[in-house]
Amino acid sequence: MDHLTELQTKGKNAKQAARKLATLSIVIKNQALNKMADALEQEGATILTANAMDIENGKAKGLSQALLDRLLLTKERIKAMADGLRQITTLADPIGEVLSTTIRPNGLEISKVRVPLGVIGIIYEARPNVTVDAAGLCLKTGNAVILRGGSEAIHSNTEIIKIIAQSAYEAGIPVGALQLIETTDRQAVNEMLKLNEYLDVIIPRGGAGLIKTVVENSTVPVIETGTGICHTFVDEFADLDMAGNIAFNAKVSRPGVCNSMETLLVHEKVADEFLPGMLKVYQEAGVELRGCPVTCQYHQAVKPASDEDWATEYSDFILSIKVVADLEEALEHIDHYSTRHSEAIVTKNLENAKRFQHEVDAAAVYVNASTRFTDGFEFGFGAEIGISTQKLHARGPMGLAELTSSKYIITGNGQIR
Amino acid sequence: MDHLTELQTKGKNAKQAARKLATLSIVIKNQALNKMADALEQEGATILTANAMDIENGKAKGLSQALLDRLLLTKERIKAMADGLRQITTLADPIGEVLSTTIRPNGLEISKVRVPLGVIGIIYEARPNVTVDAAGLCLKTGNAVILRGGSEAIHSNTEIIKIIAQSAYEAGIPVGALQLIETTDRQAVNEMLKLNEYLDVIIPRGGAGLIKTVVENSTVPVIETGTGICHTFVDEFADLDMAGNIAFNAKVSRPGVCNSMETLLVHEKVADEFLPGMLKVYQEAGVELRGCPVTCQYHQAVKPASDEDWATEYSDFILSIKVVADLEEALEHIDHYSTRHSEAIVTKNLENAKRFQHEVDAAAVYVNASTRFTDGFEFGFGAEIGISTQKLHARGPMGLAELTSSKYIITGNGQIR
Repeated sequence: MDHLTELQTKGKNAKQAARKLATLSIVIKNQALNKMADALEQEGATILTANAMDIENGKAKGLSQALLDRLLLTKERIKAMADGLRQITTLADPIGEVLSTTIRPNGLEISKVRVPLGVIGIIYEARPNVTVDAAGLCLKTGNAVILRGGSEAIHSNTEIIKIIAQSAYEAGIPVGALQLIETTDRQAVNEMLKLNEYLDVIIPRGGAGLIKTVVENSTVPVIETGTGICHTFVDEFADLDMAGNIAFNAKVSRPGVCNSMETLLVHEKVADEFLPGMLKVYQEAGVELRGCPVTCQYHQAVKPASDEDWATEYSDFILSIKVVADLEEALEHIDHYSTRHSEAIVTKNLENAKRFQHEVDAAAVYVNASTRFTDGFEFGFGAEIGISTQKLHARGPMGLAELTSSKYIITGNGQIR
Repeated sequence: MDHLTELQTKGKNAKQAARKLATLSIVIKNQALNKMADALEQEGATILTANAMDIENGKAKGLSQALLDRLLLTKERIKAMADGLRQITTLADPIGEVLSTTIRPNGLEISKVRVPLGVIGIIYEARPNVTVDAAGLCLKTGNAVILRGGSEAIHSNTEIIKIIAQSAYEAGIPVGALQLIETTDRQAVNEMLKLNEYLDVIIPRGGAGLIKTVVENSTVPVIETGTGICHTFVDEFADLDMAGNIAFNAKVSRPGVCNSMETLLVHEKVADEFLPGMLKVYQEAGVELRGCPVTCQYHQAVKPASDEDWATEYSDFILSIKVVADLEEALEHIDHYSTRHSEAIVTKNLENAKRFQHEVDAAAVYVNASTRFTDGFEFGFGAEIGISTQKLHARGPMGLAELTSSKYIITGNGQIR
């Protein structure tokens, strides 16, 4: 089976499954999720064997230690994936929710109800846990899913999908609901991006390069996720102890994730008091510092920042720092360099807080808190399929509701127009 | 100015305007809409002169009478455009609406608030009234708009945008909020479809060819509108008088629009009673009839339908008709040929009604009413920018809310993670 045939066949299967999935009871969906979880643990040894092949191939190909770590599965990681599925069963079923009902003057009753999106394509990279996570969230929301993972994880993913799909189908989920593209040919991705006949949406999960490829080449609607050049602005009216805690947390707690801070902006009126101590704390924590000329004067460890620095998502222990004249300059810097993910101000001044919240154009705008909270679990959604940085359909952390659409159901008694 | 420069310049202007528009008070937006309306009427003569040039060029190019009629402006049509703007002022401002607020266990207050999309691109065809209508709806929702109308209407559109933009800017709307692409080079559309740096969304309004071009080539997110192969299924349990009224209205009241019916499905148990009279009524109304073999037996005027007929949006006084064995066959036919716009069943049977509403995958699913009601005004939205046939972001008639996005505003007192 060549990959075009594979895509066409799987697309068709998924679409047929989606029609049945849309009206499936939550009891069956939750039973399936539990059985999938149990099967993952019971057949953990098979998954570990497959994963060992991926790891071996990865080492032979010279993958970095970080990539190999993302690829690696252990008994504990398999248990975590299974527990993730069990946790999804505890969430309310969003499907069928009546979002609004109006009765028109002519007597037509118009209800807007929540329905699945249909068939979701997920394109991701090395982490095999995404296979389980995405499958679980799509199933819960009545969507069929076609997964395309990184070629490095192909053996792990193939084994995982075999196990969870079989247990799901045994539990009454329509065949075709959970599928993985098995060819590792990169051309298959390009064909998936044009599979409008069968896919309702594609969600890329991964680095900037993957997301750019998908956005630029997909004719299927895309939900863009990810890139975060996040700023924290320490206002002249900030509680500087609070500012220090927040600025440290936003950079250092987990620099590899998209909601961590890349640039610190400091009002010039508090720079003398705030920056020397803060720069020292960062330096002791191993953070490489790059600053504007004013910042460089406060500490010898600060290297001059280039224009490129302000536009870079380091995802690492690196921070760029700029002293600004006022809130206006901070807003302009953010407007210019922000990827519209998460932005924060630390201030005690109500007017500045309000202005920042209203004027900054980003998915999540914080006053007096770390940008690190932009996350479906932290927001209380109980799940997360990614963080949307586009404005269409979903913005910010995406939970179950963001994997749904709606339709209008209209009931009349013979109305004509 | 070549067209790439024009697009880049207008994109940049729009983006700058959008930042200011996002926080503009509703008082100023409504004042501007009223002034735009007044200016349209006051300068009606200039618009009619420009329109006369378009009409003359159109005749010289041999445009069809239908196209020329869409292109034509009159004093009455200009008044209707102005009244459309005034009507938009009566609608509530969706911007700033708090969609939800939660306080998390750690004390973070997370509010989801409605914000504009940013910059909207609208690509449309010959009707100059779309220029006014789209500009008004985008302005009301705090979005900047870049319009690209059909080349046939370029003189009319240029004059209209000059008049409404100037009066809007005089009323305090930021310059750049309302712009028209003035080059008629088709290449400009292709460049607009790649203008991701400045455009947040593109909405095509027009025929199937235009929409296909936009969907297949745009890297900017698109809201797909329009195509409607709508069905009406007369169930075995239908009130046949009601079914006759609905089926007649859905086809004949305005066959050129997307919510009109293209295919009538009739349960075989009622075909003998229903079809002979119905076919006669259609024939007398000048509807060309194409049917399945069974339907052909009921009236000599019915020509055999080809496979292509079931997949065609006639947008004309043509109807395809099929007798089906049961609800299941009706559902399968609809699933296969529907463009997921509007679908109807006529039945007195509750179970069949429910099954149809739940299983049919379309933006609007009707029981005992004409598909012709799928419309923003009929749904009570007070406005309509188009009818979305995709599942992402908006589905069905799009009013003001569908021209908005949201952002999360988070307020803390020093929370770190």
